[in-house]
Amino acid sequence: MSGRLLGSLATTDALADAFSDTAMLQGMLRFEAALARAEARAGLVPAAVADAIASLQPDAFDAPAIADAARKSGTIAIAFVDALRARIGAVDTAAASYVHWGATSQDVTDTALVLCLQQARTTIDAHHARLTTALTYLSEQHRDTVLLARTLLQPAAPTTFGLKAAGWLGAIDRGYTALDAAGRNAAVLQFGGASGTLAALGTKGPEVAELLAGELGLTCPDAPWHAHRDRLAALIAACGVYTGSLGKLARDVSLLMQFEVAEAAEPGGGSSSMPHKRNPAGCAVVLAASTRLPGLVAAFLAGMPQEHERGIGGWHAEAATIADAVQTTGSAAAAAAELTTALTVDPDRMQRNLSGTRGVVFAERAMTMLAPAVGFDAAKRAVAAAVAQAAQGQASFAEALAATDAAAALTAEQKADLTDPRAYLGAAETFRRRLLDRKG
Amino acid sequence: MSGRLLGSLATTDALADAFSDTAMLQGMLRFEAALARAEARAGLVPAAVADAIASLQPDAFDAPAIADAARKSGTIAIAFVDALRARIGAVDTAAASYVHWGATSQDVTDTALVLCLQQARTTIDAHHARLTTALTYLSEQHRDTVLLARTLLQPAAPTTFGLKAAGWLGAIDRGYTALDAAGRNAAVLQFGGASGTLAALGTKGPEVAELLAGELGLTCPDAPWHAHRDRLAALIAACGVYTGSLGKLARDVSLLMQFEVAEAAEPGGGSSSMPHKRNPAGCAVVLAASTRLPGLVAAFLAGMPQEHERGIGGWHAEAATIADAVQTTGSAAAAAAELTTALTVDPDRMQRNLSGTRGVVFAERAMTMLAPAVGFDAAKRAVAAAVAQAAQGQASFAEALAATDAAAALTAEQKADLTDPRAYLGAAETFRRRLLDRKG
Amino acid sequence: MSGRLLGSLATTDALADAFSDTAMLQGMLRFEAALARAEARAGLVPAAVADAIASLQPDAFDAPAIADAARKSGTIAIAFVDALRARIGAVDTAAASYVHWGATSQDVTDTALVLCLQQARTTIDAHHARLTTALTYLSEQHRDTVLLARTLLQPAAPTTFGLKAAGWLGAIDRGYTALDAAGRNAAVLQFGGASGTLAALGTKGPEVAELLAGELGLTCPDAPWHAHRDRLAALIAACGVYTGSLGKLARDVSLLMQFEVAEAAEPGGGSSSMPHKRNPAGCAVVLAASTRLPGLVAAFLAGMPQEHERGIGGWHAEAATIADAVQTTGSAAAAAAELTTALTVDPDRMQRNLSGTRGVVFAERAMTMLAPAVGFDAAKRAVAAAVAQAAQGQASFAEALAATDAAAALTAEQKADLTDPRAYLGAAETFRRRLLDRKG
Amino acid sequence: MSGRLLGSLATTDALADAFSDTAMLQGMLRFEAALARAEARAGLVPAAVADAIASLQPDAFDAPAIADAARKSGTIAIAFVDALRARIGAVDTAAASYVHWGATSQDVTDTALVLCLQQARTTIDAHHARLTTALTYLSEQHRDTVLLARTLLQPAAPTTFGLKAAGWLGAIDRGYTALDAAGRNAAVLQFGGASGTLAALGTKGPEVAELLAGELGLTCPDAPWHAHRDRLAALIAACGVYTGSLGKLARDVSLLMQFEVAEAAEPGGGSSSMPHKRNPAGCAVVLAASTRLPGLVAAFLAGMPQEHERGIGGWHAEAATIADAVQTTGSAAAAAAELTTALTVDPDRMQRNLSGTRGVVFAERAMTMLAPAVGFDAAKRAVAAAVAQAAQGQASFAEALAATDAAAALTAEQKADLTDPRAYLGAAETFRRRLLDRKG
Repeated sequence: MSGRLLGSLATTDALADAFSDTAMLQGMLRFEAALARAEARAGLVPAAVADAIASLQPDAFDAPAIADAARKSGTIAIAFVDALRARIGAVDTAAASYVHWGATSQDVTDTALVLCLQQARTTIDAHHARLTTALTYLSEQHRDTVLLARTLLQPAAPTTFGLKAAGWLGAIDRGYTALDAAGRNAAVLQFGGASGTLAALGTKGPEVAELLAGELGLTCPDAPWHAHRDRLAALIAACGVYTGSLGKLARDVSLLMQFEVAEAAEPGGGSSSMPHKRNPAGCAVVLAASTRLPGLVAAFLAGMPQEHERGIGGWHAEAATIADAVQTTGSAAAAAAELTTALTVDPDRMQRNLSGTRGVVFAERAMTMLAPAVGFDAAKRAVAAAVAQAAQGQASFAEALAATDAAAALTAEQKADLTDPRAYLGAAETFRRRLLDRKG
Repeated sequence: MSGRLLGSLATTDALADAFSDTAMLQGMLRFEAALARAEARAGLVPAAVADAIASLQPDAFDAPAIADAARKSGTIAIAFVDALRARIGAVDTAAASYVHWGATSQDVTDTALVLCLQQARTTIDAHHARLTTALTYLSEQHRDTVLLARTLLQPAAPTTFGLKAAGWLGAIDRGYTALDAAGRNAAVLQFGGASGTLAALGTKGPEVAELLAGELGLTCPDAPWHAHRDRLAALIAACGVYTGSLGKLARDVSLLMQFEVAEAAEPGGGSSSMPHKRNPAGCAVVLAASTRLPGLVAAFLAGMPQEHERGIGGWHAEAATIADAVQTTGSAAAAAAELTTALTVDPDRMQRNLSGTRGVVFAERAMTMLAPAVGFDAAKRAVAAAVAQAAQGQASFAEALAATDAAAALTAEQKADLTDPRAYLGAAETFRRRLLDRKG
Repeated sequence: MSGRLLGSLATTDALADAFSDTAMLQGMLRFEAALARAEARAGLVPAAVADAIASLQPDAFDAPAIADAARKSGTIAIAFVDALRARIGAVDTAAASYVHWGATSQDVTDTALVLCLQQARTTIDAHHARLTTALTYLSEQHRDTVLLARTLLQPAAPTTFGLKAAGWLGAIDRGYTALDAAGRNAAVLQFGGASGTLAALGTKGPEVAELLAGELGLTCPDAPWHAHRDRLAALIAACGVYTGSLGKLARDVSLLMQFEVAEAAEPGGGSSSMPHKRNPAGCAVVLAASTRLPGLVAAFLAGMPQEHERGIGGWHAEAATIADAVQTTGSAAAAAAELTTALTVDPDRMQRNLSGTRGVVFAERAMTMLAPAVGFDAAKRAVAAAVAQAAQGQASFAEALAATDAAAALTAEQKADLTDPRAYLGAAETFRRRLLDRKG
Repeated sequence: MSGRLLGSLATTDALADAFSDTAMLQGMLRFEAALARAEARAGLVPAAVADAIASLQPDAFDAPAIADAARKSGTIAIAFVDALRARIGAVDTAAASYVHWGATSQDVTDTALVLCLQQARTTIDAHHARLTTALTYLSEQHRDTVLLARTLLQPAAPTTFGLKAAGWLGAIDRGYTALDAAGRNAAVLQFGGASGTLAALGTKGPEVAELLAGELGLTCPDAPWHAHRDRLAALIAACGVYTGSLGKLARDVSLLMQFEVAEAAEPGGGSSSMPHKRNPAGCAVVLAASTRLPGLVAAFLAGMPQEHERGIGGWHAEAATIADAVQTTGSAAAAAAELTTALTVDPDRMQRNLSGTRGVVFAERAMTMLAPAVGFDAAKRAVAAAVAQAAQGQASFAEALAATDAAAALTAEQKADLTDPRAYLGAAETFRRRLLDRKG
């Protein structure tokens, strides 16, 4: 519950709408109308009930009053159903008796929340699609763009930006595939009545449940899941994994965008005090999300051991966490899509930064050339000496190495290779291709 | 960013107000006006600037537009300051140049957030005061009310409800004392300018900072803390510890309120399907908070390693987490205050539940009587036999024990004590007294 | 890193073995031997290297010394490879040059950890199998055992213990299916060399990787995943969801085992002070796991945004978290299997507890009978009056309701049904059946 | 429960010792001996009991067997006390009856854990002292060393390395002060007997508790705290905040140590594949700790709502979490002390990196010079033009600005200042001084 200002980086307009009061009221109304319709088809309630409910709009309800009442009863459903029944009763007393027939509070709030999630998933899906398009493009464009790999933030042997982008894509897409599957898996109706047996519907519970699920476009689960929250938990956990991979992308871009590195840049934003600044604002939004999600996932999981047929506390903790986690995930996907779509890459600078290492990043390569020839220890001494000289700026690594005794064991071609990054890319293109192919 | 419905249990009206768009705008306006005032006193900007800012109200700003813009720049401050400058510029061009003089985005947003926190703390303080009053009253009223202690949810030797309530009070009050101290400690001005040196103010930075802090009623820290978030972290962590202790209280009450235990009850709320239900809704709100806070604390802490003079991502993750954590904490304190104030306690039922154990909870006592006399192993055998008989319902533990050989070692008084809970309360009253005295 | 005493509840002997120093050394040796074998087959290194490595046992290495060295280099691999090379070099200097050929530290430690995980998964799988057998048995045995449903810890309309057990089974089995899939998905080779391109192997990288994966019984991924940790993250998250569902089972059992409820009991353990105690120790182990896992999942996810081609910090945080999370999960599965296998259920007590409500749990049922006949408001008044009377112990709910005016609308059969729990179980058996069928 | 290899970065030898089986056994023996001594002084048990216990060493106990037994009873105390009683009984049957007199399992395990914590705190204290010495030295040495401030990883106006080091020191020291206070606060005896009333000691409970606390060098709390875990929670939370500030230091150092920045470097460690590498291994250890702690804090807090007089699950989750959290914190402090003590700083490179921005970081300064003179908008245009030219490398920012019309408003001195970082350090030295003075 932050205002839009304090929550500005953790949602988008569309995602905030998906979890707004209007969306929840709409979801609850859809549930109650569909329930009445299903029960009418099963011969349990008069047909008029559904029509009466369907005629109502969210703005017929006082959301703040319902929210206040929830603090007394533990759920927004009671005040909502009371208000709904009163609305219906004002025009059709008989119909009012059949409102919410056989359902329990959790049936309507859980299902309405699931409907909100469906809406949010559509939004996130579009962001993810844009993101994969942008990453695929970047990877293809920069198939042959060579840059330093960096391990523990130190220069390593070269790689390609095409592989780097494909690596981001691979993890992000695996994460989204799992998130999407978890989302579909969680798109289930909640409908169990007071004790999860649908006893109030006699023998017609399962039939009504099927009809109700059909009305709402949701899956009818094998049984109600009032106190079994694993499907939602898996969805929130998948948000955490996906956002973690988005965070990895943003971490990399923000590092590449450092003034001293300057190999890639997102458009970013300005500063209120420094006119020269170009801040990686998109990265900031994504990294903020990957900072928050682990805790939100923990908050959800911590509530899972719910008591008996309806929990106390664990269940009540969920709604705010779900809304936060999903919006923050979508906000990150949106920012990641934007920043990758507009990313500028500087292959020349990548080349210059690589050259700036004076060839020391080929020390491993030299080892694999020398060790079989002169023995591991002698090779190690020669390479270490050359690395030290290059570091002092007196010569390039290749030059310094050529001056060692051990270098006698090297062919001219081998020596030349020690100055050519393109000769030391190994399977970079094979890996890149495979990562992209996965997307079909 | 959940709507009021999805966030209904995680805040109150007053707490939601403290973190609303209006509150943030008000806080940012207060900062900018006070800054201009301080700088005018230091001779840096014209006096008219402060007056011009002070004449503006929050509703002069378009919060949603500012929130949207934040996604581009990473902060709400830029759009806010632009709008503010435009407002001022429309009536006084010269003054507009001096708006936000020498400050950076984070100065205004951090300080505004600190001002929001101050408002929230006042609210929470009132809830805590009511809660301690209620717990003190319960403890005094039930100084001599005996009930089963329960360990791992199994009956143990008796204690008093007075001590139980005092135990809740002790932990909750220690937690609040720490939370309050952390809150005061975090009530610090943020003011460092672009790089945390206040360089734009020349030599007058520290002087202006002191004046500015004074204007806002905040402490002036030894230095700006743009990327050092320990004070806020400590506050959020203290929310976690405090809410954990509130959760312990709510856990206990919800267990005591079980139909099968029925030793205490909060007023609670009803059910949308079951007219007979009296749900411990207050406990649910508190337990929900103690379920969520650990994750929110983790979310804050995870963002602490912020880069250089202003972080990327870690900082941007904070606002939503702080707003959530503090509101949820306050929501729990409010619910705890309400439920304890209205708690009904049933000493008779406590006595009956104790009697229902047929005295087996005095098995430890019997051991301490018998072991010195007949040896540990013989005592253990006798007690085990008596426990088994009592469990089968054939006799009370005291009767069954009296029939063992070992019982010959017991005096008549000792045997009588094995049926009197009041004779086995040890230091309960001493501990209770001490816990209450702590409150002065 | 706790000793066995402080970690006693968070692992088992078999699981501790899977992450022991011996297991890690064995895993690293297996990797290096298989690597040499694969490279020999690809014609890159002499055949003797693999044989020399394969002849070594874990106890040839000084684990504490390797662990100490890791604090200097950030990885145990360097000291391990140095020691390995020295061992090989002592007998075959030429072979020593080819040890660890083309691999990087993370290749050997990540793959060894994956091999540890494989071992642990086998153990957990056996625990889960025992658990599902026990739950299936309980559900079948108690297909018709009626007990109170309880919502927010208050009595609700009846359900069956068969459905309750099936509900546990459903969630736990869904969780395990996901955990098992995540485990298989994470059973991938790590092999990328210094920069993730296998450049040191020239064009033979992918071929060697396939051979190496085959040797180790692991999947060869599309590309190295040094800084893309989503597969491991998904596994740890799945541990969190599974353990959450185990925690729900344990929460329920511990509540059913309360002296005042006494509907089911695990064998449990004793007390050091109270001879009569029978503590639900199995539930304690499981609940402890479900308390710890959310934080461990958060700890893993927080490290996901890893820098460039090898992270700093995020990666280094993983090993301890993975070992903890998986052992704690397995410990919970083992305890859950034990406690459910030995669970005693008391149908008579269930019936008595149900009767103890004096029929008020049928209030919902009465509403569905009365509301259509006399209108919602009149029905509500009649039911409320009957509930109040029953609560005061003057009459059963059915008797009290029969005395109201509204009751004239009820048939004799309807009235009789209000005293028969078996007539109000709705679809309990259908749901139970479906949940069990899922297991095939 | 990871082996030393998997946990190598998350502890040190000394810290692992503090939570080893030997340490726990020693702690439990100390508790039982001190208890017997205290009870002998209070006239409750024979003097021989304490002597008999005191004569035993940890190696008299089978730690693995005790750990295994804990899975059956939920606590290591029962098997330990049984073994202790058997040991004593073998030489003095009478004394055996008085072993563990009046205490409960949790009394001995909680107190032993507190004693382990005391030992760990001494170790951490020494690391922290070294760290503050190193940071103070760095700050004093580099009082006048100018470098770029960096916000969102982009260059900002200059600051001093002296202030940067002082900022680290300030946050870390505030964090340690809080951690130390929390540690002292948690150094309390646990002694409440079966139900927390010390009933087994009759009226002598409080007296024995005082004597026992005195024997152990611990504070005697106002009351037992079996299910009130706030003191330990506050300690673990303080570990989280402190480690967060250590993580900020390590993040900064790892960024400064990038090849492309190269302004500071820790000694670091090598690579198993790349001979040229110098990895910031110390930073990796610290960052790993700050990645893990948030989740460990969450794991502790999640267990706080413990049931009645002794919790089920929440309590049982604590020991492993505490041992992990404290060791990881100490491991980070040790690594931070080492890396700062050996940190090399390159003032020349700092100067070169600053110059490399071609003066654009003085854009803010130019704004404060121009805006009052030519109006905000004109100033903004001139500055933006100059920034753009400098970015294209055609001229320095100062040169480009001097060529604008607006520049006519600047004095020669002002123009000169735009090329002198030392003229734009504001209150850097004042803030640095204040941060250092705090340590007095």
